[in-house]
Amino acid sequence: MYKGGYSGKVLRVNLTEQNSTVEDLPEETAKDFIGGAGFGIKYLFDEVKGGTDALGPDNKLIFASGPFSGTTIPCASRMAVTAKSPLTGAVGMALSGGYFPVELKFAGYDALIIEGKAEAPTYVWIKDEEVKFRSAEKLWGMKTTDTQQIIKNELHDQNIRIACIGPAGENQIKIACIINEWRAVGRKGLGAVMGSKNLKAIAIRGTGEVAVADKDKLKAARGEMTKAMKESPVLYPNFSKLGTSMVVDHTCAIGIFPTKNFTATGEYNPVDKIGVEVQVTRNVGSEACYGCPVSCSQLKLAKTGPYAGVLTEGPEFETMYSYGGVTGVEDIDAIIAADRMADELGFDTMSSGVTIAFAMELYEKGILTKEDTGGLELNFGNHEAMNTVLRQMAFREGIGDLLADGSRAAAERIGKGSEKYAMHVKGLELPAYDVRGAKAHGLNYATSFTGADHCRGYAFQEIFGIPVPHEVDRFAVEGKGKLTMWNQDIRTATTDAPTMCAFLLDMAVVGIAAQNTASLMEAVTDLTYTPDDVLQVGERINNLAHAFNVREGLTRADDTLPERLLTEPLKGGASKGHFISREELDQMLDEYYAERGWDVETGVPTREKLEELGLGYVTDQLK
Amino acid sequence: MYKGGYSGKVLRVNLTEQNSTVEDLPEETAKDFIGGAGFGIKYLFDEVKGGTDALGPDNKLIFASGPFSGTTIPCASRMAVTAKSPLTGAVGMALSGGYFPVELKFAGYDALIIEGKAEAPTYVWIKDEEVKFRSAEKLWGMKTTDTQQIIKNELHDQNIRIACIGPAGENQIKIACIINEWRAVGRKGLGAVMGSKNLKAIAIRGTGEVAVADKDKLKAARGEMTKAMKESPVLYPNFSKLGTSMVVDHTCAIGIFPTKNFTATGEYNPVDKIGVEVQVTRNVGSEACYGCPVSCSQLKLAKTGPYAGVLTEGPEFETMYSYGGVTGVEDIDAIIAADRMADELGFDTMSSGVTIAFAMELYEKGILTKEDTGGLELNFGNHEAMNTVLRQMAFREGIGDLLADGSRAAAERIGKGSEKYAMHVKGLELPAYDVRGAKAHGLNYATSFTGADHCRGYAFQEIFGIPVPHEVDRFAVEGKGKLTMWNQDIRTATTDAPTMCAFLLDMAVVGIAAQNTASLMEAVTDLTYTPDDVLQVGERINNLAHAFNVREGLTRADDTLPERLLTEPLKGGASKGHFISREELDQMLDEYYAERGWDVETGVPTREKLEELGLGYVTDQLK
Repeated sequence: MYKGGYSGKVLRVNLTEQNSTVEDLPEETAKDFIGGAGFGIKYLFDEVKGGTDALGPDNKLIFASGPFSGTTIPCASRMAVTAKSPLTGAVGMALSGGYFPVELKFAGYDALIIEGKAEAPTYVWIKDEEVKFRSAEKLWGMKTTDTQQIIKNELHDQNIRIACIGPAGENQIKIACIINEWRAVGRKGLGAVMGSKNLKAIAIRGTGEVAVADKDKLKAARGEMTKAMKESPVLYPNFSKLGTSMVVDHTCAIGIFPTKNFTATGEYNPVDKIGVEVQVTRNVGSEACYGCPVSCSQLKLAKTGPYAGVLTEGPEFETMYSYGGVTGVEDIDAIIAADRMADELGFDTMSSGVTIAFAMELYEKGILTKEDTGGLELNFGNHEAMNTVLRQMAFREGIGDLLADGSRAAAERIGKGSEKYAMHVKGLELPAYDVRGAKAHGLNYATSFTGADHCRGYAFQEIFGIPVPHEVDRFAVEGKGKLTMWNQDIRTATTDAPTMCAFLLDMAVVGIAAQNTASLMEAVTDLTYTPDDVLQVGERINNLAHAFNVREGLTRADDTLPERLLTEPLKGGASKGHFISREELDQMLDEYYAERGWDVETGVPTREKLEELGLGYVTDQLK
Repeated sequence: MYKGGYSGKVLRVNLTEQNSTVEDLPEETAKDFIGGAGFGIKYLFDEVKGGTDALGPDNKLIFASGPFSGTTIPCASRMAVTAKSPLTGAVGMALSGGYFPVELKFAGYDALIIEGKAEAPTYVWIKDEEVKFRSAEKLWGMKTTDTQQIIKNELHDQNIRIACIGPAGENQIKIACIINEWRAVGRKGLGAVMGSKNLKAIAIRGTGEVAVADKDKLKAARGEMTKAMKESPVLYPNFSKLGTSMVVDHTCAIGIFPTKNFTATGEYNPVDKIGVEVQVTRNVGSEACYGCPVSCSQLKLAKTGPYAGVLTEGPEFETMYSYGGVTGVEDIDAIIAADRMADELGFDTMSSGVTIAFAMELYEKGILTKEDTGGLELNFGNHEAMNTVLRQMAFREGIGDLLADGSRAAAERIGKGSEKYAMHVKGLELPAYDVRGAKAHGLNYATSFTGADHCRGYAFQEIFGIPVPHEVDRFAVEGKGKLTMWNQDIRTATTDAPTMCAFLLDMAVVGIAAQNTASLMEAVTDLTYTPDDVLQVGERINNLAHAFNVREGLTRADDTLPERLLTEPLKGGASKGHFISREELDQMLDEYYAERGWDVETGVPTREKLEELGLGYVTDQLK
């Protein structure tokens, strides 16, 4: 049935029953959803009912890699992890790279579905077809690097690959992540879902191979892709050496690097403190995901003060923002140390930093006081305080407990009108782009099915000026609905579903992305697609994911942006004076819904659209 | 020539020339010195001339495992590392377990001799017969766990075993250690020797096997040994579960657990704060060295305060003393965190803790002030201050720089009569036994060729009441010279040279140690020994090591104890009122030298004794 790419097997692990079953992957699911994010959304919608407690036993955690992962196609060892998010109440989905994703494939599975809740701390040990439940009582409380090493020692195999949570996930803080190797399934609190299931780790060792349907075709299709990679002016010349760090300088230059909880974007420009020239002084090599010739992940080593000697993989651009720009911290070594701590304790660098920036603004405004902070002077730029509070969040200590579930929950607890300073959409903290200077990107934040998420429909046209599918004015509103839909669908279809690295899309193959995915699919599997079919897979996934949110009760009112972005023009820099007015947002939303074929008033997908996408069965669940 | 146990090959790596050679191990060296510590002392004496700068290129670093390592004999994956010590100026030798020692054997070498000095940070990569020099520029400044992981990633092999230094070794602090896996070549500053050579790490992967001369004989001899292990009332029933932690309670009970820089031993008894009952609350499993069924190494996880989530392998008893008793610190989690930090930054837990305890006493006496400490309140028991200063020592920051080279150097720098509070012998800080209540143990501290070292001639008769070779009164002086010689020789011959675990000797095979070693040697190799021959190997090594020290200018005056132990009786506890008077020390030394066949006035080995041991060539070098 499956000639390549897929094993056609889904492993279902039930923690309550402490058993596992292997079931077939329906061919239709493969065809319609490709893999990764597609499988995640499909199983999530079908199996996790509306109103399910995200931290209860009925939530499910779906690990899925794509058909290219484990083949000779570079940059494909990635996975999507999907569950209902405890942070947003919407779809929780995040992707990670490294080695774990491909190991899942080598073990023989296209997806792994975790169900139920173990009675006591447990880890799951998957060796090809063998699945064991092992006690994690003694691992509970352990940091992520140690957890992985101790499990490898315990199982007497240093080549096992492990996804695990740290204390933050155990303590079910809603911004906890999952760590595999040094990579993170970072956002939407999926680590808390693992914690709620008493699942400390998943250890995998696979000894199989991933079949390929047509090796000659694959050679040709891969050749097209690697040619595009070689021709990219940034991928190898720049990105291999610097990773995402260079984006600090670029976003500062165009005035959209958010600083001091978005109060000072453009006006306060920290490029000389934490820009790429400073960052490279800490570079000590790089790491690559399985099968990746780019090796973008920069290792940095802190040099000064109490942080000296701390190594981290990163901080990526988003963390330079969340522990740097948005908190006003200018100490590169403090940022490096915070990044490592986040990986070790297992929480999202982005949401945690943005939540602290929020608390910093409240502290500066007098809404939070020294009494609340336990004596900490939580001003913008205080890196010791930032590092202290980050640690406290993971353990729910002191003010950390107040902030541990992200900025929306913190604002609810604090009250006093603080919500208007909380920079989130649907509960997910904003990424590192002040979208007052990049309006399609803003519309994506408002409409992405995971909340404010730069990983869903990244507007590289606005941010990097890449004229695909066409040139755009980043401050314009007209046409941004259509563009955002395209950005979301192309990303989902060509990176998140086949689990290809998103950086490839942005930097090398964007012009040929749909064709490239179609060619690779035809070579690796026995499924055929036109480029339009590929794009439609993206549309299908976005529709089904959005339908999940609608079923959870989300409405057009949730597709919005923080008040500050809608009311306060940028005060300085290259985007000075710009903001997204409520009218502009409404105009973009109208266009977006119309393009999507959704009801413009409510944002609910129409029956026609769903049926067109083969999702007719969904309609009845959207009352 | 060699039928088993030995490959007969010594790998010599020259960092200056960036080349390596393999040479034969002379059969006579194997016969006379067995391995491990024996080879270390032999090559050190013969190749490192008197007066060599310990931190200069002419010092050599000799890694040697024993003939049993890599065979089916349990508890034999250990190695001795030997060099001239920068801390003491005498023989620097320390042993470590783990996996690195056996990997050296599997790679085909009985010993590895590191010579010269690399121009720039380097690591050596040994894969069987292949030896490569690789840049460690980017590893410089990195902690030890990260260093090992990054090297494994870089060489694409997770099964490589690595010995490395941390920032402390790089900064050549004289109490820096070498770390392999989580084990330490802990004492005498051998990490600084690596640092002085610009050698960040040695990575080894061996795919060979260790031959055995007579498998039937081995089965029989090993059977004797494992029978003794099974019959031990402590080894499996107790030591497997608790490791060395139980010794805190025992030494507290007999009044010799040193507290507050030896000012309060017996009087202040912290057993309810840091004794075994508290320690086990942090236990989360154990780790074993290669081929060890005992698995004594207890993993502990800190639970509270800023230390929560820190895992460590340990703290061993000695560290419970150095970061606990002797500093007056009562916070188990602070001790756990300090232990991990020492492993990560790469310094000796013992010397560092005892040096801080010394500084604490000076601070309490007003000899050091807040000005000296940079504002820290360095009182006994201040665990935050202890952890801060420990970190500062590794980086030579603030008061850490003053203390970074151990207590003798610190006392010299501080002056003001502080030397009398510095608890060291020959510059090596005292281990965890207040020898005012264990006088043979005290004589061993005074005479051990490495300085105050519990690992050389451990007086288990006094400390645990084990009546081998006979019962003793721990407060008595008579007969302690002879006993100490036996303790030193049996330990050297049956554990340090064949590189067997010392705990086996103390806890299981002490009564049959020499016979057991003889039987195992005859089975594994083609060399034959009587038990007396075995003991004579110990004597030979001790003589040659002592001769090294004599050549370096050490005299009888250096075989002494800190003034406090010679003048202040214990103020409380089960050893109250006892001390070792100068007269008693002299009496024991006279007896010891006489038993050793050394000149009683000078402590120099006589020509007769050296010739008897086949070391006649040494005499001419001892003018």
